[in-house]
Amino acid sequence: MSIKSKTVTFPGRFAMHRGGHLTSPTLAYETWGTLSAARDNAILIFSGLSPSAHAASSVPDPSAGWWEDMIGAGLPIDTERFFVIAVNSLGSCFGSTGPASVNPDTDEIYRLSFPLLTMEDIASSAHRVVGHLGIERLHAVIGCSMGGMSGLAYCVMYPGAMSAFVSISSCTRSLPFAIAVRSLQRELIRRDPKWMQGNYDRSDPPLEGQRLARKLGMMTYRSAEEWEQRFGRERVTDIQNPGEQFKIDFAVEAYLQTRAEHFSGGFDANCYLYLSRASDLFDFSEHGGSLQAAFKRLKLDRTLVVGVRTDILFPPRQQRELAAGFEKVCKDSTLTELDCLRGHDSFLVEMDAFRPVICDFLEGDCR
Amino acid sequence: MSIKSKTVTFPGRFAMHRGGHLTSPTLAYETWGTLSAARDNAILIFSGLSPSAHAASSVPDPSAGWWEDMIGAGLPIDTERFFVIAVNSLGSCFGSTGPASVNPDTDEIYRLSFPLLTMEDIASSAHRVVGHLGIERLHAVIGCSMGGMSGLAYCVMYPGAMSAFVSISSCTRSLPFAIAVRSLQRELIRRDPKWMQGNYDRSDPPLEGQRLARKLGMMTYRSAEEWEQRFGRERVTDIQNPGEQFKIDFAVEAYLQTRAEHFSGGFDANCYLYLSRASDLFDFSEHGGSLQAAFKRLKLDRTLVVGVRTDILFPPRQQRELAAGFEKVCKDSTLTELDCLRGHDSFLVEMDAFRPVICDFLEGDCR
Repeated sequence: MSIKSKTVTFPGRFAMHRGGHLTSPTLAYETWGTLSAARDNAILIFSGLSPSAHAASSVPDPSAGWWEDMIGAGLPIDTERFFVIAVNSLGSCFGSTGPASVNPDTDEIYRLSFPLLTMEDIASSAHRVVGHLGIERLHAVIGCSMGGMSGLAYCVMYPGAMSAFVSISSCTRSLPFAIAVRSLQRELIRRDPKWMQGNYDRSDPPLEGQRLARKLGMMTYRSAEEWEQRFGRERVTDIQNPGEQFKIDFAVEAYLQTRAEHFSGGFDANCYLYLSRASDLFDFSEHGGSLQAAFKRLKLDRTLVVGVRTDILFPPRQQRELAAGFEKVCKDSTLTELDCLRGHDSFLVEMDAFRPVICDFLEGDCR
Repeated sequence: MSIKSKTVTFPGRFAMHRGGHLTSPTLAYETWGTLSAARDNAILIFSGLSPSAHAASSVPDPSAGWWEDMIGAGLPIDTERFFVIAVNSLGSCFGSTGPASVNPDTDEIYRLSFPLLTMEDIASSAHRVVGHLGIERLHAVIGCSMGGMSGLAYCVMYPGAMSAFVSISSCTRSLPFAIAVRSLQRELIRRDPKWMQGNYDRSDPPLEGQRLARKLGMMTYRSAEEWEQRFGRERVTDIQNPGEQFKIDFAVEAYLQTRAEHFSGGFDANCYLYLSRASDLFDFSEHGGSLQAAFKRLKLDRTLVVGVRTDILFPPRQQRELAAGFEKVCKDSTLTELDCLRGHDSFLVEMDAFRPVICDFLEGDCR
């Protein structure tokens, strides 16, 4: 992937939330639309674990972004009305400082010497970018998946610095099933002999472990019902191949193989490990000692929680927990549970369901 | 595990369902209770993928069996009334011939030269054991999990050779989510360098791959809700351990580690691969060309389908599919959906929910 995001470096010491620091971290970001004279039309988007800041196409980078059908002129996040900012998460590998970056203090790649990463660090570094752009108060913060957690961290760390918050398929803190999945994904990468305790040759990374982790991920990003409709028991081979008997039989296996191959080359393994564990460790209730206390710290005019019935990674009960928390502290709170078939990934692939919800919330005139 | 099951060897050629044959296979089995003079009180139990024939304690082997609370005097499968038979599945490694056995034709361990295994082979070999015991018609066939599939194969291959069939947390054929899970489990074992294309040193087997496969299995054998109640976000370590930052943080991770260690040493890796793929390949509709045609081949007086709401591996819609099929061909058919919390494994660990259902069906007087 060729990164054409803008970057900004913040000189000096950047203290990390759970200890340690970075020296002069760089953040990659992209923007769309124009900041109003009153500087009151900015929307900050926090992505899931794997995307770059390239959420939508632009003049400098006309390639499609990860939320191409959501952000643009006349789309729900309307770039004719809003100044839209997407930041590559601190700890990632698409232009922002992370475990794959060179530590300027040592001139060596951080690898596992990168300090423990948290959602709060992703939030505070994004806050620096927002300040750099001259914005004091955002019209809205929107976070998807892991980005919902970093967005929630942002809202609680900078109360009043935004009018609205939109949480999409996210949660206040991860449940044991999601932790178990991510923990096994990390173990699959760490057990690849090529990982070498994080010191892998960057031209020969632990791709096999990454592929296995991605396959496991896909099982939780999509839904059993989707696969049932899409693949059923369709086979890609005749059964009579005992010599090859533990290779691929079914269409669903071929699909996972293809998807895993496609993803694994593009993401740094150590960055993945750091972001994955940060997702497990985030707990909104640490901001005040309880969920109730954390919600009370928020200063939001409006909130929207969107979730999907078939999401097993961030299930509907977590969406209802978020919405119930917001309702107690914000008079204009909405929960929308969508009946999408494609599980957690629906916000990326079922645009026809998500667009009207976001459009309504942002009071747009969606075409 | 020390195997004290009885064994019987069937001399000669045993043709396999999808081609190939075994020479003089051995089947391990255990029995409880006494066969009536009319030989009409026998119950045959098909186990899930991993258990031995030791379903319950007995005089020769007083250790607890895998269904200890279900089989015994005064229990739902009442050994004072029934002659109960459990067979170690063909292809397994607890006394029955499988990939870990010596091929008498070559005096070498079969390993991957073992022919392609199917549920039909497990059924037909169990049928030989039933014949060996002098039984023409069983009172009931009971199958749990994978055993529900081999039991269904038994019922369709030997119509009229049983009065009743009980399917517990099973299906007519696996859905893509279950196939994906098992496929990744097999890949985790096959990618362990110690697997060596099946030619592993039996004193140094691919335990790491087996452990990883078991962890993935546990995520689908239990339920997210159970883990939420049981573990929540309980931690086993302080977070401030960046040097150990990809080890274990949460109680659920420690639980998976312990369970995986416990299981992996006891099961032969190649046997696991064969049984796992056999589970994916089974398709009841092949017995006649459609599910409807397959159900029509059955000759059953009574059927019971039991499933669990929280089972993601054999979900409730598969239980309803089974029950709907039985209803059309058997006038006395019952479907019981249990509200157990522990997912697929509930039939092993939520005995208080399962006992009354089985007891009622077998018209017992359960204590």
